[in-house]
Parts: sequence; C-alpha cells; structure tokens
Amino acid sequence: MATVVVGGSACGEIGSNLAKLLKAKYFRIEKKDFPDGEFVVKVPFDAKGNDVIIVQSTYAPQDRHIMELIFIADALKDMHAKSITAVVPYLAYMRQDKRFLNGQVVSSHMIMRLLNAAGIGRLVTVQPHKEKPLSLFKGRVDSIMPIRALMKRVSHELSDPYVLAPDIGGLELAKTAAKILGCGYTHLDKERDPLTGIPEIKNKPHERFDGKQVVIVDDMVSTGTTIMLASRFAYSRGAVEVVTAAVHLVMADGARHRLMQAGVTRVYGTDTIPAKNAVIVDISSEIAAVFGKKRKR
Amino acid sequence: MATVVVGGSACGEIGSNLAKLLKAKYFRIEKKDFPDGEFVVKVPFDAKGNDVIIVQSTYAPQDRHIMELIFIADALKDMHAKSITAVVPYLAYMRQDKRFLNGQVVSSHMIMRLLNAAGIGRLVTVQPHKEKPLSLFKGRVDSIMPIRALMKRVSHELSDPYVLAPDIGGLELAKTAAKILGCGYTHLDKERDPLTGIPEIKNKPHERFDGKQVVIVDDMVSTGTTIMLASRFAYSRGAVEVVTAAVHLVMADGARHRLMQAGVTRVYGTDTIPAKNAVIVDISSEIAAVFGKKRKR
Repeated sequence: MATVVVGGSACGEIGSNLAKLLKAKYFRIEKKDFPDGEFVVKVPFDAKGNDVIIVQSTYAPQDRHIMELIFIADALKDMHAKSITAVVPYLAYMRQDKRFLNGQVVSSHMIMRLLNAAGIGRLVTVQPHKEKPLSLFKGRVDSIMPIRALMKRVSHELSDPYVLAPDIGGLELAKTAAKILGCGYTHLDKERDPLTGIPEIKNKPHERFDGKQVVIVDDMVSTGTTIMLASRFAYSRGAVEVVTAAVHLVMADGARHRLMQAGVTRVYGTDTIPAKNAVIVDISSEIAAVFGKKRKR
Repeated sequence: MATVVVGGSACGEIGSNLAKLLKAKYFRIEKKDFPDGEFVVKVPFDAKGNDVIIVQSTYAPQDRHIMELIFIADALKDMHAKSITAVVPYLAYMRQDKRFLNGQVVSSHMIMRLLNAAGIGRLVTVQPHKEKPLSLFKGRVDSIMPIRALMKRVSHELSDPYVLAPDIGGLELAKTAAKILGCGYTHLDKERDPLTGIPEIKNKPHERFDGKQVVIVDDMVSTGTTIMLASRFAYSRGAVEVVTAAVHLVMADGARHRLMQAGVTRVYGTDTIPAKNAVIVDISSEIAAVFGKKRKR
C-alpha cells in the first residue's frame, strides 16, 4: 500500500515534481481522443489499495480538463483505490462565487458538487479566487498560498519595490507581499460592470511612487485589463518601472499585448498554468508540504 | 405553477418545438462567454415552483455542452424549481459503456453520476448507444427510439429497399426498420480492434442485394468507417443504390467524404445533432409524447 501520483494531461511538471518530493511512484494518465471529440482515460497501474494523488490543472479548455479529472477519479474509485486526492493547481470557475445577476448559476458551487460526485476525498488547490466555495467540498481542503515563493523570486530582481493591489480584494495579498519585500503597499478600488465585466478604477489613493519599481500583485492575470489600468496609474504617479506578479497566469485574449502597451516590463507567475515569456516559479514543494502536515484546526 | 421549457445553446429547434407541442412557455438560456474560456449561464425567468424541462444536446464540444446542462440544472435548483427534467437528444460518452481495457473509466457511468449531482430528477434521451448506463440515473428515464419516424421518411423515397445492419448490435434496429419498410434485412458482424478502434467485417452473410436499394441502419454515423465498409459490401453483392439512415449524425472527421467515396447516395438522420447535406427528420413530437405518458412498468 503506497502513495502513487498520477498526472493528468494538464499537470505540467507539477505531477512528476510532486512525486519526486513525496518519494512516490509517478504515472502519466493514458488519454485517447476519439474522432468525434470524446476521449477516454486509462489508469496505467493497479490502483487497488493505494493512496492516489491526481494532479490536474483546469485551465482552458476548462470543461475538458475538469471532465478529465472527474473521469480519472471515477476510474480510480472503480479500481478500489484506498483514497483519492485531487491536486488542482488552477481551479476553474472559482470567479463565479456568487449570483451576480438573478437566475445565474453559482458555477463554483457546482464544481465542488462535481468533485464530490467523482469520489474525490481530498482537494488541494492553489490560491483560489475565493475560499468560500471550497466549503462545499466534502472532505479535507488545502489552499496553498504561494505568495512567499513568488515574492522571493521578485525580490532578487528589484532594488526599490512598492506593492500595488489593483483592487481591495487583493489587499491581503499585497500586505503579505510588501512584508516579504520589506516595502510599502497600497491598493486601488476596482469595480466591474456586472453586465459588461469592464473594470474601472474608483477612489484613487494619494500615494506617489516616484523612483519606485511598482509590483502589481494579484491572484491572476486574466485579460490583463485590470493590471493595465493599475500600471498606467502607477506610471502616472511617478513609478520608474512596473512589473506584475500573479499566481495564475491565465493570460486570456491579448493579455500579453495589453500588459506591454501599459509598460509592464516583466510578468512573474507560477506553474499552475503554462505561460510563455514570463518568469515562472515552480510551486511543487509548496504542494508537497501539505502532504506532511496535519489539518489545521 | 406551470411547465416551462428552457433551451440550452445546443438544443437546436427541439426546445421551441417541444414547448409548442406541450403548450408550455419557452425561454432560451442566456449564456455569456468570458475571455478566459469560462462561461456562465443565466435562467431568464422565475423558475420557483415550476416544472422545468431543460433541452440540451451534448454533441461536440461534448464537455462544454455537458457542463452547460449541469450549470443550468444547478441554477434551477437554486431557484427552487419544483422539478427539473433534462431532455438530452444526443447523450455523449454512452459508447464507453464498459471497461474495454483495464484501468479505463466507464465514462457513461460517470455522466449519469454528474446528472444526478446536478439535481436533474428526470432524463429523456433519444436512442442511447446502450441502455444499461441509464440505470445509474436516479430518477425516471425515457429513451425515445425514433426509428419509425426515420423509416417513414425513408419509405417515401425508396421503391425496393433492403435493410442492412453493419453489426449485430444493430440487429434489433434493422428488424424494426425492415418491418416498417415491409422488406428483408440482414446484418454484418463488425469487430473493432480495442486498441486502434479500426472496424473490420467478420462472417459476411450469404444474401445478395441484386436490384435492391440497401438502407444501412445504425444508431449513429460517427467517422462513417463502419458505414463505408457496409456500403462497399452491399454494392459487391449487387445493390443498385445504398443510402444510410441513422438517428444521430455525429459526422466526425471526414465522415461525409468517406460515405460519398463508398457510394452512399443519401444520408437520413434526426435533429438530435445539427447536420448538413442530410435529410433531417424532426423528432420533437416523439419527445413531446413521453410527457403525456405514465412510466411503463
């Protein structure tokens, strides 16, 4: 009876890295795509009696990656795995964490119900957009907050940083980042139009950033529109350089271009989502660490 | 308290047709796609206390269409709909109805678990590839077999038909089709390589089809490889024309070309999946019929 790590098609290097750190066997899931658009997964080892850790991120195409995770878990359950843990470095649909408009689905809640239905007994994820939906998961949940690892990397390359959160939701993250960097921090107030999703900055702070290297810190870069607004604001208040550091580099729909246009000189992120032209911090050891720990009370 | 039909993005005309036949209100789901690849659905009416019928097919992209169905159901549950029925004209992943290789997921079983987890109380589907997985659905299930509607359409255009099932699994369907057309029938024995999926004809029957219009009947046309083999066989035994009639026109990956090359002159199908260059039979009235009936015992 042993711990075995199985990597889904969207696990990147985290699957094999995690297995090494846990001194566990590692297998890559076998996935076959059918011509009609369906696929099937095959667990390439005898899972019976083993504690199995699935590693599968759920970036785009989110639905396919979620379905793969669920199918892997179901196959493991059928094989009588002793326990099934899902490590989901990027957990999709967490932004829809409440009913923004009447009649809307709270997608994040349904995702939790799906993970439960697939027989996943423990969930490990990284910096979820909101923590609250995770409470619907019936089992132990660990959220890894890799801001320390990310900021250690940032600190090597900046001499006079200042941390800026693009909205009040990022204030805690900014505070932690500033503490690690040993610098000041502030935040903007961003509001999104509930219908169009277009962000706008409200209540600009009074700080100036003269001579500073402003680090825009957020949980993710999605379209980059928010970061773009924050970067322009930072330059308008005297910043000499603006970089951005985010856990999840979703980088949707022209994000790279938007950041460049707004003068963001470097993008720091983690390997929860594959990204090009960014400084990437591997967070396998942060993930491995939760497997040694007892649950916090 | 009324019956309301809500059409998902993959319901075709079936949603509005069904509503008309049931004299129910019809709404189209509101779906918003986000730039990162996620989407959100919004139910555009007050579902509270209503019997709601969701119509959503799950052809490619299957995972997205399944997720949409599940999200719609979850939103309706949150809105306190009195009952939630899913009409899924084409139900994906039903072909993976057993473990063909050790360690494989039985995808069709997991799909049933997902529908249960979404709070769907009743399922209506059309000609599932196999019936057995449906037994895992916790609620009433109706499978509609539209072979009569399909064959009535075929019979208008053929004067001397003969029915051919491409494998023994299609024998019952062929028998029914032949009875409706008032003609003979036979079947081939097709075997698929479990690793490559490539079909081959075993044990060819002795029948000749001289002067006949051979109707190849199957539950679906996927890549068309099976139909292609059957069509060539029919011509080799004297058929003057070969047509194909299948409930689900999946038409994956060059299927159209394969059928043409094999001399299939016409493709008949139903509107469970949108298809071009085919004779399409609307099956809304077959679907509506199950809503008047008590469950068979």
